[in-house]
Amino acid sequence: MLKSLGARTILYPTPVSVVGTYDKDGKPNVMTAAWVGICCSRPPCIAVSLRKATYTHGNIVERGAFTINTPSEKYVKETDYFGLVSGREADKFSAAKLTPVRSDHVDAPYVKEFSLVLECKLRHTIEIGLHTQFIGEIIDVKADEAILENELPDMKKLKPILYAPEARKYYGVGSYLGEAHSLGKKM
Amino acid sequence: MLKSLGARTILYPTPVSVVGTYDKDGKPNVMTAAWVGICCSRPPCIAVSLRKATYTHGNIVERGAFTINTPSEKYVKETDYFGLVSGREADKFSAAKLTPVRSDHVDAPYVKEFSLVLECKLRHTIEIGLHTQFIGEIIDVKADEAILENELPDMKKLKPILYAPEARKYYGVGSYLGEAHSLGKKM
Repeated sequence: MLKSLGARTILYPTPVSVVGTYDKDGKPNVMTAAWVGICCSRPPCIAVSLRKATYTHGNIVERGAFTINTPSEKYVKETDYFGLVSGREADKFSAAKLTPVRSDHVDAPYVKEFSLVLECKLRHTIEIGLHTQFIGEIIDVKADEAILENELPDMKKLKPILYAPEARKYYGVGSYLGEAHSLGKKM
Repeated sequence: MLKSLGARTILYPTPVSVVGTYDKDGKPNVMTAAWVGICCSRPPCIAVSLRKATYTHGNIVERGAFTINTPSEKYVKETDYFGLVSGREADKFSAAKLTPVRSDHVDAPYVKEFSLVLECKLRHTIEIGLHTQFIGEIIDVKADEAILENELPDMKKLKPILYAPEARKYYGVGSYLGEAHSLGKKM
């Protein structure tokens, strides 16, 4: 029996991403975001939605670039911290003992210790309501060689963090269920 | 050591969603999409990106509405099938032995057997490239009472499907890692 829960932001799960930016003085910042998703295959683009009040919002407008960094389970505390504190008040890289590295292709830093990084150039800015959606073209993907399998990241080695909005809970990735574009052929 | 993989649509994982629509004649259709994400909290909005060639793309333009249905692991074959075949050629609901139900608030059908459903009204249409991004306002969330805990869906009861783009693999949800907006306070 389906029960109505009202108008709410419930999509289970959302992938947990850490957005890397420079501010106008060149200070690197990181912020955790769950309102993230791929939004185009050609050119490859990713959308991240942020409140105008965030420090990262101003940085993206200023620099026209950002990185999307995927934290592994072992960085779940640091990742949660990156969403609790503003870059206006803290040097979050230092507090978390993580290392900012200048991207090769865009004007934004990535997190050296994380295993998967997307360098993105801002292409579209869409005002929706409380959140602004920034659409970035993915200029390059970088991954730790240790998590690769057949030249692609392996989910079980990457161990990304999943988020349950509103319930405010984090989860890991579980069992392999099967091959996409293949299982359905049996129907 | 980070290795460059080039410009690719790699975000791990993406949540697997089934998009429900009516065509111009009122035939219900479902299509699997992984380019999906929440994009605003107020009003609550979700973005889904589709190629113009898909049947669902035309249906959303025609009807101005869609549903986002979250399949559980046990429907992984049906879900994969919904992404392999076009609604132009098949009645996918019948083929999968699933039941279309007219939404209460929008002009689109949802999948009766799935445990989590979002009824969405089209608010913005953004042409990005190969994909068009449709931003829908979430008018209502419906969930099976059997998956609720404290009036919210429980991830371990819902058992949503995760997708690894490019590697083309499906995974389930794993262990609980901790409470968001809380773990990071220890830093």
